[in-house]
Amino acid sequence: MGVTLPLHNCERSVKLFIAYPEVVAATSGVLRIGLAQINPTVGDLAGNVAVITSTYDKALAQGCDVVAFTELCITGYPPEDLVLKAGFVADNRAAMLSCAEHTSDCVAVIGFVDTDQQGRLFNAAAICSGGLVRGVYFKELLPNYGVFDEQRYFTSGLDVPNRPVLFRIGGVLVGITICEDIWTADGPVRSQAQAGAALTLNINGSPFHRGKIGEREEMLSERARENRCAVAYVNQVGGQDELVFDGGSMLLSHDGTLLARSPQFVEDLLVADLELPSGGTSKDSVAIEVSTVAKRQNSIARAVITPRCTDLEELYGALVVGVRDYVRKNGFTDVVIGLSGGIDSALVATLATEALGANHVHGVSMPSRYSSVGSETDAAKLAANLGIELQTISIEPAFQAYLDMCAPSFAGKPVDLTEENLQSRIRGTTLMALSNKIGWMVLTTGNKSELAVGYFTLYGDSAGGFAVIKDLLKTTVYELCNHINRRTGTERIPQAIIDKPPSAELRPDQRDDQSLPPYDVLDAILSLYVENDRTAAEIITLGHDPGLVRRVARLVDLNEYKRRQGPPGVRVSTKAFGKDRRLPITNAYRG
Amino acid sequence: MGVTLPLHNCERSVKLFIAYPEVVAATSGVLRIGLAQINPTVGDLAGNVAVITSTYDKALAQGCDVVAFTELCITGYPPEDLVLKAGFVADNRAAMLSCAEHTSDCVAVIGFVDTDQQGRLFNAAAICSGGLVRGVYFKELLPNYGVFDEQRYFTSGLDVPNRPVLFRIGGVLVGITICEDIWTADGPVRSQAQAGAALTLNINGSPFHRGKIGEREEMLSERARENRCAVAYVNQVGGQDELVFDGGSMLLSHDGTLLARSPQFVEDLLVADLELPSGGTSKDSVAIEVSTVAKRQNSIARAVITPRCTDLEELYGALVVGVRDYVRKNGFTDVVIGLSGGIDSALVATLATEALGANHVHGVSMPSRYSSVGSETDAAKLAANLGIELQTISIEPAFQAYLDMCAPSFAGKPVDLTEENLQSRIRGTTLMALSNKIGWMVLTTGNKSELAVGYFTLYGDSAGGFAVIKDLLKTTVYELCNHINRRTGTERIPQAIIDKPPSAELRPDQRDDQSLPPYDVLDAILSLYVENDRTAAEIITLGHDPGLVRRVARLVDLNEYKRRQGPPGVRVSTKAFGKDRRLPITNAYRG
Repeated sequence: MGVTLPLHNCERSVKLFIAYPEVVAATSGVLRIGLAQINPTVGDLAGNVAVITSTYDKALAQGCDVVAFTELCITGYPPEDLVLKAGFVADNRAAMLSCAEHTSDCVAVIGFVDTDQQGRLFNAAAICSGGLVRGVYFKELLPNYGVFDEQRYFTSGLDVPNRPVLFRIGGVLVGITICEDIWTADGPVRSQAQAGAALTLNINGSPFHRGKIGEREEMLSERARENRCAVAYVNQVGGQDELVFDGGSMLLSHDGTLLARSPQFVEDLLVADLELPSGGTSKDSVAIEVSTVAKRQNSIARAVITPRCTDLEELYGALVVGVRDYVRKNGFTDVVIGLSGGIDSALVATLATEALGANHVHGVSMPSRYSSVGSETDAAKLAANLGIELQTISIEPAFQAYLDMCAPSFAGKPVDLTEENLQSRIRGTTLMALSNKIGWMVLTTGNKSELAVGYFTLYGDSAGGFAVIKDLLKTTVYELCNHINRRTGTERIPQAIIDKPPSAELRPDQRDDQSLPPYDVLDAILSLYVENDRTAAEIITLGHDPGLVRRVARLVDLNEYKRRQGPPGVRVSTKAFGKDRRLPITNAYRG
Repeated sequence: MGVTLPLHNCERSVKLFIAYPEVVAATSGVLRIGLAQINPTVGDLAGNVAVITSTYDKALAQGCDVVAFTELCITGYPPEDLVLKAGFVADNRAAMLSCAEHTSDCVAVIGFVDTDQQGRLFNAAAICSGGLVRGVYFKELLPNYGVFDEQRYFTSGLDVPNRPVLFRIGGVLVGITICEDIWTADGPVRSQAQAGAALTLNINGSPFHRGKIGEREEMLSERARENRCAVAYVNQVGGQDELVFDGGSMLLSHDGTLLARSPQFVEDLLVADLELPSGGTSKDSVAIEVSTVAKRQNSIARAVITPRCTDLEELYGALVVGVRDYVRKNGFTDVVIGLSGGIDSALVATLATEALGANHVHGVSMPSRYSSVGSETDAAKLAANLGIELQTISIEPAFQAYLDMCAPSFAGKPVDLTEENLQSRIRGTTLMALSNKIGWMVLTTGNKSELAVGYFTLYGDSAGGFAVIKDLLKTTVYELCNHINRRTGTERIPQAIIDKPPSAELRPDQRDDQSLPPYDVLDAILSLYVENDRTAAEIITLGHDPGLVRRVARLVDLNEYKRRQGPPGVRVSTKAFGKDRRLPITNAYRG
């Protein structure tokens, strides 16, 4: 079937516009709604089309009247600067059209990048059925904060005349919105509801942070209640660079009651029947007629409300999905991890094993003259518990070689951090050699507390492809390890690893607390300084030790250049060391 | 003197508002204008205040009626996420007020971050004299493309009612605009000119790229002509992370004629007398009365038009300033560079010597079993020409140690890139050891062609604090080296280094052209793919070899993860591998 409508400027191109007089809905009908919680890959247009069309077929087989896919599902979200390539945008439109051509009598809502004759780009949703694009909605509220740069790319639908547009699907007036659109009370949901929409279909690429699913549910419930409009919310799942999308798609009635929810972190097609006012007409607006009667449903699609994960369980889920998708979507199967016998590498190895399978995780113990016996035995115990390979490579030969090579240059200078960094860099280089030779991706093991204050070696322990726990404060590392042991009911992570005092073991009898304050004290300051954008002066007024706060703040600022050269990792907080925190390296502010 | 005006919402707070009837200007006067082309440091509020007040004093001593400072000069430009700290914004306002208090009868225009009671932020200019803030202008057009993220931070002045506002200075109606504001024909310059402005003062933090000063002059001339309004354009100088600001402040008459220009890349106070219609009144607008009569000038401030740099000379200037400011603003005095005897490290050492002085540049030759004799003698010749220190550290002991350490893990696998990467990583680790022990910043030597296709070793030759020539294609490296020798009239960079075929010398008889196409062919493709956002398919239709284009495009995409972990460097093109190119790492697009 051919597509007859140009996609831009759908007001002009859609021939079925009817401006109805104001009439109250006279009857009601049952709409079967599918929410396609899929895991697209950025840039993989053909692969994403395949996922969309095969999921469409499932929704069709289950008798759906409408199935909604996720925001920019054609390109994967977020496509970033790929959309600045006109050729990419053209390819994405062709991919969307191939999905549209695939549709029959179930309406599909498909996220893609649209463009107009002026070359402006829109974060758009195509409403398709019967092989045709029936209309296109342009996202109105474009987030440009945190990890979001949408105003860099897209023009708002508000800059296009003649909105709002509703769609009659199965006799029900339906409004379409995209992600951010629904987070504001006076946004397009209100105007669409006022125009007569009984249901808003909201398609999302909403990244995870801890507790966000609760915020979403509360917001969606409020949006439904205040507009007397049912809400169908579909969200992407899976990892994309530093972002993880947790799914958790939801259906809420017009009074804000949660009717159905998908699980988090897995693909899902949520199907539910929803009774909605039918036959109503649009006020002060236009409605595109897609279908006037819902399909006759032979059986009831029972709504399932999957319980929300607990806090630590959703954190665990996010990290597992984040590492799995980063590794696999980048063409790797196996990872290698330096196992020091410490808690950070133990957690990373445990997460990687869950994500990839024990056969795909390779541990390397790299002892030096300063390594304790306990470290090696603890690493061995962990590897045995996880069922992963462990090899041992002593770094002594290279360490001695460097000391000899540099001796003339170092003459007369005392031993200092240089020698500690050398050991860490030898370990990083050794892991990278294994990576290069065998094709394993190196996972780094630094946590957010260490990254914040620079308690790591650039090109040493920070060397690798993915920094799994870079957004976990050290106190959270402990919480999560204890949680993992509780959930497995065993000492999967040996208790000795959890209990021993943290040490980098880069000089005799070294312990972290010789260089850093206790982690609970440090993390409290970091949470304020890094995650909440407070100044040192403000944190001091909250009662923290002035000298310590100044020192920690200075360390955070000074180490920006090191963090900037680290690998990406899973974002789980509202402010990770990634694209949601854009501090200058050259920065003389000492407030 | 106290400041009496709240800074936000200046319409309400300024008491001198007078809405004049429409009257044509009756007379003319001479305004002495100072353009303060300064080099602030981001975050250094006290330091920036000191530069502003001392420059103000010079302008005052030279009899200026008005002196304009640069965009966000209080904070330094761009302050990035620093402005998300409310404490920082408060400190920046206090710093601006201290500058305002310093003013007497010369009007100062000072860029700072303003905020209103809703907590919205504005990219603002304070118009100050007599110790008071007379009014505040809010930037209207906020760039959010390329390296700019201003919509992430700021609200547009267009979202504040009752604009435009003009300022009467020395009897002349003056409009204030900020950077991007002047780049659009139907922007605030037009509305201000229509309201009666005879002069627009445009303050800038306009980053350099090659040839931009010519684009600016053309645009400013057009803006002046079409509005019959003189233009005073002041721009920041100096380096800030990857950005370089080139200054080149200009004064143009109402007919678009260039009257004065500052040199590029150095601080300057440009003072010039400009005859302007005086005593006119503002139409359909409000004017804040600052001073009705220009000071009586005893002598004429002669306008100087500094000639524009030639293309390669401005490139040279940008690189020298970029490395100098990055090193010094980050608290370093000395740098260390691995001198391979190749052209890239030769260029970097030459630029660093110009920027920092020969005593502050340290070369290290790190031969391996694969190094040619010529490489060592060429490096020695270069060091002698530049007058810099050169030490030699053979990497053989560490190389052999790693080979021995890894032998069990590598058993049965052929020699491959792993062994090449090992050598490069040993060199990187050695330079970092010198950096750690002695306090030198490591400068890396990779060029844009190599970075694009991944022809470098992560944690090896890419390890360091600043990547001086990362935005120079290899063909440009050659051009610039030849230019340097021409400008010095000597073989400052030994001709042997320029003439020999490029080689990484990581295996016997290695040459770049065994792995890569000739650089002129490669660079032509990279220019299209990277700098012009063309897809591989589009480049092929332009006549380039299909297989080669596909291979190069694939290499560029595959190596995003490596580039992401590299240090910043000087941006000189319209699209560097930095914050103006935000491609996903996980990216399956093969168009």
